Amino acid sequence: MPDFFERSLIVHEHLRGKIGTVSKMPIVDHDDLSLAYTPGVARPCSVIAEDKEKARDLTLKRNSVAVVSDGSAVLGLGNIGPYASIPVMEGKALLFKDFARIDAWPICLDTQDVDEIVNTVRLIAPVFGGINLEDISAPRCFEVEERLQDIGIPVFHDDQHGTAIVLLAALFNASKLVGKEMDSLRVVINGAGAAGTAIAKLLRCVGHDPKVCTPVADAIVCDSKGAIHAGRQDLSGYKKEMLSYTNRGNRSGSLEEVLVDADVFIGVSKGDLLQASHIRTMANDAIVLAMANPTPEIMPDEARKGGAAVIGTGRSDFPNQVNNVLVFPGIFRGALDAKAPTITESMKMAAARALADATRNVSVNKILPDPLDRTVASQVALAVSEAALPPD
Amino acid sequence: MPDFFERSLIVHEHLRGKIGTVSKMPIVDHDDLSLAYTPGVARPCSVIAEDKEKARDLTLKRNSVAVVSDGSAVLGLGNIGPYASIPVMEGKALLFKDFARIDAWPICLDTQDVDEIVNTVRLIAPVFGGINLEDISAPRCFEVEERLQDIGIPVFHDDQHGTAIVLLAALFNASKLVGKEMDSLRVVINGAGAAGTAIAKLLRCVGHDPKVCTPVADAIVCDSKGAIHAGRQDLSGYKKEMLSYTNRGNRSGSLEEVLVDADVFIGVSKGDLLQASHIRTMANDAIVLAMANPTPEIMPDEARKGGAAVIGTGRSDFPNQVNNVLVFPGIFRGALDAKAPTITESMKMAAARALADATRNVSVNKILPDPLDRTVASQVALAVSEAALPPD
Repeated sequence: MPDFFERSLIVHEHLRGKIGTVSKMPIVDHDDLSLAYTPGVARPCSVIAEDKEKARDLTLKRNSVAVVSDGSAVLGLGNIGPYASIPVMEGKALLFKDFARIDAWPICLDTQDVDEIVNTVRLIAPVFGGINLEDISAPRCFEVEERLQDIGIPVFHDDQHGTAIVLLAALFNASKLVGKEMDSLRVVINGAGAAGTAIAKLLRCVGHDPKVCTPVADAIVCDSKGAIHAGRQDLSGYKKEMLSYTNRGNRSGSLEEVLVDADVFIGVSKGDLLQASHIRTMANDAIVLAMANPTPEIMPDEARKGGAAVIGTGRSDFPNQVNNVLVFPGIFRGALDAKAPTITESMKMAAARALADATRNVSVNKILPDPLDRTVASQVALAVSEAALPPD
Repeated sequence: MPDFFERSLIVHEHLRGKIGTVSKMPIVDHDDLSLAYTPGVARPCSVIAEDKEKARDLTLKRNSVAVVSDGSAVLGLGNIGPYASIPVMEGKALLFKDFARIDAWPICLDTQDVDEIVNTVRLIAPVFGGINLEDISAPRCFEVEERLQDIGIPVFHDDQHGTAIVLLAALFNASKLVGKEMDSLRVVINGAGAAGTAIAKLLRCVGHDPKVCTPVADAIVCDSKGAIHAGRQDLSGYKKEMLSYTNRGNRSGSLEEVLVDADVFIGVSKGDLLQASHIRTMANDAIVLAMANPTPEIMPDEARKGGAAVIGTGRSDFPNQVNNVLVFPGIFRGALDAKAPTITESMKMAAARALADATRNVSVNKILPDPLDRTVASQVALAVSEAALPPD
């Protein structure tokens, strides 16, 4: 792969910025200058001074999202800090534009202190219509996101919910293919970080009726010490909280042990953990979603050898790429269009269902739309913005 | 004027954002997606993790400026807060793009606390190549700017220095027209806020040799209580500091009193203060730069009646519009091109001289280039970036 990575470096050196700004108003004569700037601009300013909600009607706030990171958990690179995280946040901003016509701007914070992150996001919020938190390490990311839910614009940690939503959509289609009901599934999730926690939460409401929360049969989350269960003395606060909605049978044991008879394996941890022999211990027609990047928890051919019926990874060079570019553009497009103050659980569920439904010609090699399918974001956006409306 | 202001409102309602983002990299196939985002983006990230200065070579930092305001001193509107200030900051971002190809983004802060402003700017700095402070009230603006001089990128309060630089450029050409040497000028400045303080500082170095600081003959700054002089008991810290470089003769009295025999009046305060009779008391061939907006300290025809030889205002409907759009795009273009860590006094002086020199066919009705002249910013930028280089 060195050639590929060198090419990426060359492209970045060449562009020096994957996004830029663009003027939406030509300044040709003095009248243009006076309208766009002083003195004319005083008029929209005065209108907003009377009612700050008007900022959404008169400024870029309507359509702008900050992509905020502290660089503490970037891709597979880990804690590389704010400067080194800029290329990722820029890439995300580019995808927001390309897939959902959203004006997103990277904000890379020179701090990893939770209070400072929370306070800074609060203080810069006026100009944005939404905040996409990105690559902030667990468990700090949970607290950051939770403390920002009251700022009047959606704050959405994509590594948690974007990943969880696209995984759930994949699971909707995969379970249909193998003829199992969602509420019959026994799911094992390896990885108790941002994504693992969020997917476990979403698995609480997977029934046909979106107004009633029907969970999967069971979900067990494993961390590096095996299954998270009530008997463990080493659990931090948020892992304890997880016990209230996972591991109903309170099973203990290693990943390999709890995987026995499971219907679904979801890997959101690190690569190269499982072999075909492990998959063979799972229930028939097992579903394997191995998201570690670039090396999945188990390679697709190895999982197939173990009898898995449906296999997805995070990679574009295998079928069934589970990529959250299928989610975040549509989620924010829908939230901005609805002027939603938060992204609720029902908006997330609506996104997962819309994404599953947007998949054409579902098959074992096609449980999700192609990540480059430009029609997906608008379908997701529509479902999300409908779910954002207050109930009748 | 109601029609004009209504038109501005309509334009703002129509655009809902005068700027947006633009993708500089087409995402056509999976290879594009992998290069711009994951996994390829890991390569430039790793390079920057080794050396954060590489962020200027590999990301939008090279060309990006934050337009930061707390909305405490917006145009003639005063303290209208961050939301109502967005249209101004957006307008500024648009002009940065249009005049100097700079990618600027508005950041309107939901606080007016100096510590919080300083801290927030520090924390969001990684992604920006420069910070344009805007519409922050005096004296807070002085402290905010001063405390941010060590963050590694230029921090420039445009209401202070942009205004001061364009005024000084106007004065260079006006004094040549009336045949007076800069160091012979007696100047009266009305307004001891952001702009008044900055112009008084720049008037310390106006001689032909940029390496030696030759001041004007005298500069007296007036606030609402008249001349700022050593005998006053009511002076705040920054006004006391001003005594070390203004009012050499330590004159007391009202604006009208100290204006007697002055060569130059600079108004950066409020409109409708002076009549022709006051101008008549000034020295022969008086220069009047009356910047209050929309109503100048004295209207041009009234100043002419009083015998003023050269008259400038902030307005586009009179000759000699003194508009800092002639300065800030070129200042930041030059600073970004030179990767300058601050904007020094010599960079400011270089900008003023370059702007004066960029004026073609200087006459009493043409002491500055037209604000829409797109060739000015690059001339200013070149001079600024040369002045940013370390001395031989």
